[in-house]
Amino acid sequence: MIKVGIIGGSGYTGLELIRILLNHPEVEIAAVTSRRFAEKAIADIYPHLTGLIDLKFEDVSIDSIAVRTDIIFTAVPHTRAMAYVPEILKHGCRVIDLSADYRLDPAVYEDVYGVPHSDPRSGVVYGLCEINPAPEGANLVANPGCYPTGAILAAAPLVRAGIVNRVIFDSKSGVSGAGAEPTAVSHYPNLAENIKPYKVTAHRHLHEMIQELKELNPAKISFTPHVIPSIRGILTTAHIILEEDVDEDEVQAIFDKFYGDKPFVRLKGIPDLTSVRGSNFCDIGFQLQEGSDRLVVISAIDNLVKGASGQAVQNMNLVFGLDERTGLMNPCLYP
Amino acid sequence: MIKVGIIGGSGYTGLELIRILLNHPEVEIAAVTSRRFAEKAIADIYPHLTGLIDLKFEDVSIDSIAVRTDIIFTAVPHTRAMAYVPEILKHGCRVIDLSADYRLDPAVYEDVYGVPHSDPRSGVVYGLCEINPAPEGANLVANPGCYPTGAILAAAPLVRAGIVNRVIFDSKSGVSGAGAEPTAVSHYPNLAENIKPYKVTAHRHLHEMIQELKELNPAKISFTPHVIPSIRGILTTAHIILEEDVDEDEVQAIFDKFYGDKPFVRLKGIPDLTSVRGSNFCDIGFQLQEGSDRLVVISAIDNLVKGASGQAVQNMNLVFGLDERTGLMNPCLYP
Amino acid sequence: MIKVGIIGGSGYTGLELIRILLNHPEVEIAAVTSRRFAEKAIADIYPHLTGLIDLKFEDVSIDSIAVRTDIIFTAVPHTRAMAYVPEILKHGCRVIDLSADYRLDPAVYEDVYGVPHSDPRSGVVYGLCEINPAPEGANLVANPGCYPTGAILAAAPLVRAGIVNRVIFDSKSGVSGAGAEPTAVSHYPNLAENIKPYKVTAHRHLHEMIQELKELNPAKISFTPHVIPSIRGILTTAHIILEEDVDEDEVQAIFDKFYGDKPFVRLKGIPDLTSVRGSNFCDIGFQLQEGSDRLVVISAIDNLVKGASGQAVQNMNLVFGLDERTGLMNPCLYP
Amino acid sequence: MIKVGIIGGSGYTGLELIRILLNHPEVEIAAVTSRRFAEKAIADIYPHLTGLIDLKFEDVSIDSIAVRTDIIFTAVPHTRAMAYVPEILKHGCRVIDLSADYRLDPAVYEDVYGVPHSDPRSGVVYGLCEINPAPEGANLVANPGCYPTGAILAAAPLVRAGIVNRVIFDSKSGVSGAGAEPTAVSHYPNLAENIKPYKVTAHRHLHEMIQELKELNPAKISFTPHVIPSIRGILTTAHIILEEDVDEDEVQAIFDKFYGDKPFVRLKGIPDLTSVRGSNFCDIGFQLQEGSDRLVVISAIDNLVKGASGQAVQNMNLVFGLDERTGLMNPCLYP
Repeated sequence: MIKVGIIGGSGYTGLELIRILLNHPEVEIAAVTSRRFAEKAIADIYPHLTGLIDLKFEDVSIDSIAVRTDIIFTAVPHTRAMAYVPEILKHGCRVIDLSADYRLDPAVYEDVYGVPHSDPRSGVVYGLCEINPAPEGANLVANPGCYPTGAILAAAPLVRAGIVNRVIFDSKSGVSGAGAEPTAVSHYPNLAENIKPYKVTAHRHLHEMIQELKELNPAKISFTPHVIPSIRGILTTAHIILEEDVDEDEVQAIFDKFYGDKPFVRLKGIPDLTSVRGSNFCDIGFQLQEGSDRLVVISAIDNLVKGASGQAVQNMNLVFGLDERTGLMNPCLYP
Repeated sequence: MIKVGIIGGSGYTGLELIRILLNHPEVEIAAVTSRRFAEKAIADIYPHLTGLIDLKFEDVSIDSIAVRTDIIFTAVPHTRAMAYVPEILKHGCRVIDLSADYRLDPAVYEDVYGVPHSDPRSGVVYGLCEINPAPEGANLVANPGCYPTGAILAAAPLVRAGIVNRVIFDSKSGVSGAGAEPTAVSHYPNLAENIKPYKVTAHRHLHEMIQELKELNPAKISFTPHVIPSIRGILTTAHIILEEDVDEDEVQAIFDKFYGDKPFVRLKGIPDLTSVRGSNFCDIGFQLQEGSDRLVVISAIDNLVKGASGQAVQNMNLVFGLDERTGLMNPCLYP
Repeated sequence: MIKVGIIGGSGYTGLELIRILLNHPEVEIAAVTSRRFAEKAIADIYPHLTGLIDLKFEDVSIDSIAVRTDIIFTAVPHTRAMAYVPEILKHGCRVIDLSADYRLDPAVYEDVYGVPHSDPRSGVVYGLCEINPAPEGANLVANPGCYPTGAILAAAPLVRAGIVNRVIFDSKSGVSGAGAEPTAVSHYPNLAENIKPYKVTAHRHLHEMIQELKELNPAKISFTPHVIPSIRGILTTAHIILEEDVDEDEVQAIFDKFYGDKPFVRLKGIPDLTSVRGSNFCDIGFQLQEGSDRLVVISAIDNLVKGASGQAVQNMNLVFGLDERTGLMNPCLYP
Repeated sequence: MIKVGIIGGSGYTGLELIRILLNHPEVEIAAVTSRRFAEKAIADIYPHLTGLIDLKFEDVSIDSIAVRTDIIFTAVPHTRAMAYVPEILKHGCRVIDLSADYRLDPAVYEDVYGVPHSDPRSGVVYGLCEINPAPEGANLVANPGCYPTGAILAAAPLVRAGIVNRVIFDSKSGVSGAGAEPTAVSHYPNLAENIKPYKVTAHRHLHEMIQELKELNPAKISFTPHVIPSIRGILTTAHIILEEDVDEDEVQAIFDKFYGDKPFVRLKGIPDLTSVRGSNFCDIGFQLQEGSDRLVVISAIDNLVKGASGQAVQNMNLVFGLDERTGLMNPCLYP
């Protein structure tokens, strides 16, 4: 059994790791940390876990966790992860980092996040599994952001094919992406019956999209996020301006070839959030605007699964040489 | 008092006309028709109107309504309006048509809607009041579609300014736009916690946007609608590719000049649906993507008010020479 | 024109007063206070009011408001109102108090709210207008709590008729009743797709129900509130155990007689929240359990209108000798 | 591996059986029937199942299913099940019936459902597992209704203890209980921001509650259901009038003793729907009204899991002598 630690277990991505790992056949959850709830039984703070987990939240040193575990998920805000990761690695323990700290080139990171990077290193895998599968044995994987996961998966095959001039990602996210703390955005009377655009041209996740897509081919990339009245899910509408004429069959062939053997990408119709809720799938569909140079590709993910903790477990499977599907082939919660 | 008839009073736009007109100081509702509910008290079919209206739904000839009224709102599906309008007009009664029948050039209409136009006529006012205010005395006004209202208002000032290369409208609509009849789309388990793209590149309303914006200046126009879990409201995110460099002050000046004296357009921050619910306002905001040729303009309307019945009453006010605000300056229902 | 002041204008009941009073034909809003937003334009803090109100929030002495106004609505938390009211009254200015401070007998108040009452007075009208209409000229009215309004209106006719042994009020409220500040309860992921019972047997509003119903006749009263995923509205299911056999016709007759001339109570079918949203109506319906001593009466109100600010305006109308409907006969926002 | 057939696989309970059984380690889904979608791939009709199931919906004789399977779940409307069950049983195949056909005494059934019972038999297990665990080897289990499951579990320990005079069940259900077909009730604009009482004193499920609770001890039973804007879940507020004085410790002891060893009943705090979504748990909590004879017990279940398909699988586990938890110990989808 793989012994797993979760640093920052009381936020939504930490709780989602617990949910997924409890049913993973090769994993034992060995430690879950939380400063705020130190020494409290996890199931007392989160009654939905009663009967399923007997651990307490711990508030102990990174070292003390690292010596007990084979791999640690750092589900903490950015800047905190880069303080912990070197300590963990020196124990020979592996890390899947769910924060933003290792996703970007350190120089870009410092510019985008406005803080110095205390652990700049090159060669960290950007763990978007369908595009950069982490090699077996990798000791540090940067788990992609939620928006970049859905956005890059929607556009990558076409960008790789060299037929894209410009992509405008218009994304709609459930509010769990904003975290477990109540805010004006998550206040029910503000969000119900509403949709809120935010960081309309300047969300930090844009830089992950630019970085990863330019590896494939040049294209102009823009991104506008919105919060919708949904707990989970990100639907991304990728408005793609094409460099050259293609028909829908050609587009289909490009997607089929790119994702043919990927178990978590499903190409079928126009997707929506209902079909991926609680699952690790990324559903992708598209339609060409007749007589136009515009193609619309739509992707749907659960932001807490494929957009965070599910993909983190997929990365864990890869670095331990397991089938990437292990513990993750659950049907979505429909309806 | 202006005597008003409503043809098709049992759908959402008909009911919304009743809601608005009950508080209009210059109007008396003289007749409301419904085949399905003929002879039933309106307040028995719609208990929320109990104590507010004593009329019955009627199922009588157009003639018999026209002789009793000064103006008729045709709140019926397309193809039905063009059968009624000539009959109404010949009685000297005016018409605000909420259907699609008179919005497009008849040739385009026949192509888009796939039916012959039985009453092709030129010179019908496309009643987007801030751009084409109906002249006093006009006898027929085509009330714009819900999506085109929000979309055109967002883009028109910039298109008129001649600085736009391309506009991609990504719209998110409440489900009341799909009507009062239960369908798979409006089925709660299908829509809650979801967002559904539909007619991704080929919605009929695109043609209204193209027709009206090309009057101002050439630009490539695209449109993708989505249904969100909200009863009311349309938020349109207009991704605008600019022909030339502008800064945010210049954009602001363009909007201020275009809408300076328009009471129902509000330019202030990034809008959302909560601030327009139940009101006739169109809120518009924008942000420029730094170092880019992309400008994002966002508009928010209530699809049943500014996107349908409110604008219809605004058109009625104009054709009768009233202040266009009459009966319409109600605060939104916040929260 | 009646000059109105609103103390505590930045919460939901304050904003709702603004919404309602802006369309009241006999009122001019003269002053709105808010410490937090002092000197800020109301429409800058609440953009949905842009174009509708030009006032700034003030943070000035009670005296300085009282000398400028004929009546003041105190829309403040309990304990704050009892500090302001005596000051207001000494200027000859009237008060409608939306807090809990004057609703209960002072001794009961001290027990229930756990604080001494600094302004104990007898004879304050409990302004549940259909039961205790405030007399013209009254200078202080205690505006009832939201839950008590819907609950008492549902049960009062039967209690008055002397046929009730016990009433169990099971109420379901929209979350705006919990206020404008984000909390764990109002956090969208906690409330959407959920219903939360709270203060299951011990909500303070129970004491208003007991106090007012015992004036009519003895009966055992219980109350359990729940928060539902809705912004507005309170639906109360009153499970009534009867002392004696009645049939549905007799029950109907009791309700008809009690509410026959009351414009804001509508007796018709089984009510729901959709039919009262944004309006001052209280809809009431009932059903008898065949062969049983149980009668179920259901009432629906908008908690911010009939349950707070609408009823406050109705009270204002009464104390100024206006028709109680003035400014309040608006259709609900349906759908 | 147990070979399983699902008759009526295209409704919500059928789909939920598929969801649960796909992760059951001892089960192979051998056949799923649907007249409407005969010969269509399940994953084409329900894209959320793409990649998870390769079967087609079948429309074949009961015999042809029974010979291929060890147990059949009849997820069909009432009256249909009683036509199929005898045919299935004669093949030695077992049945878990999710319809109402075998839940009630046949004479009561005929009265409540208004149709003759074509297969009246005595001794059918009413499979509320915590109260009537089906014996290993049982060939027919009547799976309880969704409302009765939550209601009976809330009240049974106290009724069994002989201290209950009366129980009023006030239940609030997600709309998936009304099925997959769009109706006026499930129409989003009718349900969002609303709560709808229905069959206020006369829902058929009342008779299951009466039948099962009177087995424990006499008590007066009433039931009022409501639909809330939630896809899943039933929260039942049981207002219990006690025969004798008890304190909260005594109540706790009664519950602890009754449910001490039951893995799917959790006694902890006041429950809500969020903590059981997608899981087979029934969470129960209570509070005594001080100085009163009223106790409020609240239970929360997922109507499609513990209220239908999860409990059906729990029953299957029992009749095959498996641990009742097999395949069912999944954490809920939180948030």
